[in-house]
Amino acid sequence: MEQINGGVCAARGFRANGVHCGIRKNKTKRDLALIVSDVAASAAAVYTKNLVIGAANTVTRAHLKNGVAKAVICNSGNANTCNADGIEVAEATCHAVAQVLNISSDDVVVASTGVIGQRLDPTPIINALPDLAAGLGDKGDLAAEAIMTTDTQPKQIAYSFTVGGKECRIGGIAKGSGMIHPNLATMLVFITTDCAISSEMLQKALSKDVEDSFNMVSVDGDTSTNDMVTVLANGLAGNEEITACGADFDAFCEALNAVTVWLCRRIAGDGEGATKLLECIVTGAKDVPTARTVAKSVICSSLTKAAMFGADANWGRVLCAIGYSGAEVDVTKVDVAFRSPKGTVAVCKNGAGIDFSEEIAKQILLEEEIEILISLGDGDGNATAWGCDLTYEYVKINGDYRT
Amino acid sequence: MEQINGGVCAARGFRANGVHCGIRKNKTKRDLALIVSDVAASAAAVYTKNLVIGAANTVTRAHLKNGVAKAVICNSGNANTCNADGIEVAEATCHAVAQVLNISSDDVVVASTGVIGQRLDPTPIINALPDLAAGLGDKGDLAAEAIMTTDTQPKQIAYSFTVGGKECRIGGIAKGSGMIHPNLATMLVFITTDCAISSEMLQKALSKDVEDSFNMVSVDGDTSTNDMVTVLANGLAGNEEITACGADFDAFCEALNAVTVWLCRRIAGDGEGATKLLECIVTGAKDVPTARTVAKSVICSSLTKAAMFGADANWGRVLCAIGYSGAEVDVTKVDVAFRSPKGTVAVCKNGAGIDFSEEIAKQILLEEEIEILISLGDGDGNATAWGCDLTYEYVKINGDYRT
Repeated sequence: MEQINGGVCAARGFRANGVHCGIRKNKTKRDLALIVSDVAASAAAVYTKNLVIGAANTVTRAHLKNGVAKAVICNSGNANTCNADGIEVAEATCHAVAQVLNISSDDVVVASTGVIGQRLDPTPIINALPDLAAGLGDKGDLAAEAIMTTDTQPKQIAYSFTVGGKECRIGGIAKGSGMIHPNLATMLVFITTDCAISSEMLQKALSKDVEDSFNMVSVDGDTSTNDMVTVLANGLAGNEEITACGADFDAFCEALNAVTVWLCRRIAGDGEGATKLLECIVTGAKDVPTARTVAKSVICSSLTKAAMFGADANWGRVLCAIGYSGAEVDVTKVDVAFRSPKGTVAVCKNGAGIDFSEEIAKQILLEEEIEILISLGDGDGNATAWGCDLTYEYVKINGDYRT
Repeated sequence: MEQINGGVCAARGFRANGVHCGIRKNKTKRDLALIVSDVAASAAAVYTKNLVIGAANTVTRAHLKNGVAKAVICNSGNANTCNADGIEVAEATCHAVAQVLNISSDDVVVASTGVIGQRLDPTPIINALPDLAAGLGDKGDLAAEAIMTTDTQPKQIAYSFTVGGKECRIGGIAKGSGMIHPNLATMLVFITTDCAISSEMLQKALSKDVEDSFNMVSVDGDTSTNDMVTVLANGLAGNEEITACGADFDAFCEALNAVTVWLCRRIAGDGEGATKLLECIVTGAKDVPTARTVAKSVICSSLTKAAMFGADANWGRVLCAIGYSGAEVDVTKVDVAFRSPKGTVAVCKNGAGIDFSEEIAKQILLEEEIEILISLGDGDGNATAWGCDLTYEYVKINGDYRT
């Protein structure tokens, strides 16, 4: 497996485009992305667990019931959530895409991100579709741009891997847990692959993957109404279709995980106002769920996040977050260390502080990627969670007047 | 029931004092508080549920097993948590208090707040005790000062109420969920009353009360290692001892609740960096636990807290926090409004936005006390939670270098 150039167009048979259609007022900001597979693709998705659900999520869920899709349409600037006619608007969007591409409306995945509670007028989308479709090509980067909200950088990645002797490719784009001015954080991820895999196995791979990838990312603990991760697999790599577990499935899962973890790290590191990517690596938990609970509790702790912003080796806050996580932990066995390219500093052993050089610790924590290493000494359950520091800028972005 | 002057010395037979003993470097900052009852008092307490527990909490829990106490000793500046000799130090402190007051060590409640993971040297405490005890008097205000960490104001309150024809008094002091530079948030509350009540009924009253008071306060979602709420009841009001449920017990619970809710509001409003007190009032839940879950989720939402800082009527964030709270809620029945002394503005009806004046909303939200009113339309479960806005100052306080 190796990293290759590109994103959603790295896999054979996928084309994309991104334009400004007019949902956003700023004309230099692309706000509409289209991704199309030349042939019908197996499709799988996972959605937000928030009870308040974006209309696009509801419509996409219905469209993917048969496990097949050919296109993804996504707008930024308006989440189309909590609107009386949201479903209607999302359906109208899919219908327009279907007409332009001459496919079935059921084969369209629709996603929205942005302000909630404001009606989404589908007219700009519908008007832009002919040009958007005519311009389809190797433009995954434009699609990656068009789905951004407060992200500071587009996020795309692709890998090449081998299944049954055939070279397959997988790539993805994401928008991070930034909030559009002025509204909700949303994580949207679109992954494409030319690997041949049944929709059942694709869903299985994705559902398993997100437990250790996107479900382990937190920027501010707020779960969006519109989160969605979809994978389209069009089979053009020519491998024998993966229809069961085995070596081929494992190879696919490994490649999928490379894409998702890369995107997770970028989403966390590009969290609103973030200056640092935090990676909390928990080992030695009595089981994996315990490790996940501890890792997420630490990465979500406002106190820990603020300490990391200040490059402060305040391990007491880490221990505190472990203690209130709800996980079963023997505190007297807990070790904590901080690691970055500048080195590693152990700060807590068996639940109590140990002597360490504050100066060295500060040098380590001044880096842009910090690992918080937690050993629970209680078994072999491991987990990793990704987050970011809590900064003035976060408050600024989210405290600004909406009006 | 009426509010009266004072705090922990409002009730008959309680004296207090607060001094600088030397745990803190700043000599103008009191760091040691003592509260004494002239006679043995029924005692009850609730403690943090964090698995990482301050040594003082462990020692106090043991001392209160018999439901009796005569004195409270509390230091700020060092939490005495995660130290190898923490229990020993807490016991030595109690022993010294017992000697000075000529009481049993078992009758001493001990509490600590401040930096964790740094050894607490009991010497300054022990040395200061003779003068501290000699100076005991109507000095609840000094005790309230001595337990402060990053609190900007001491917090004390007292009420007068009637039980069985006798006038009783109850008062309390609290330190808020601010974090001492540079460590953990801790909420400490000490309440005194001259009402005669058995320790069993006192514990029953307190345990019930905290469910709707201190357990509904959140400044930053981080649960401290050292939280403790204690009540001492010395019976000097001369009422017939409350030993069972009934009108007397109800009267006591009402007075206790007046004290705890007042302190909750002050703790939340004086949260680190806070400029506003947020009160989330949930009505119409299918049951009380659902109402509590929803209220706490909203009050803990970083996005909602940042929006309130910006006086932004961003109801989508409130709805989002309801949606991910984990509570069973029919989103299509949810109404949301914001209220302050400037008026009330309804912003969401049946889960969808409604037209409102952004200008009026901003005027309402520029006030220092904001109510977020949520009606779930699903039953008669109600709950209130208290929190504060998320500000630049919070990040500054907690992101500063510890070294």
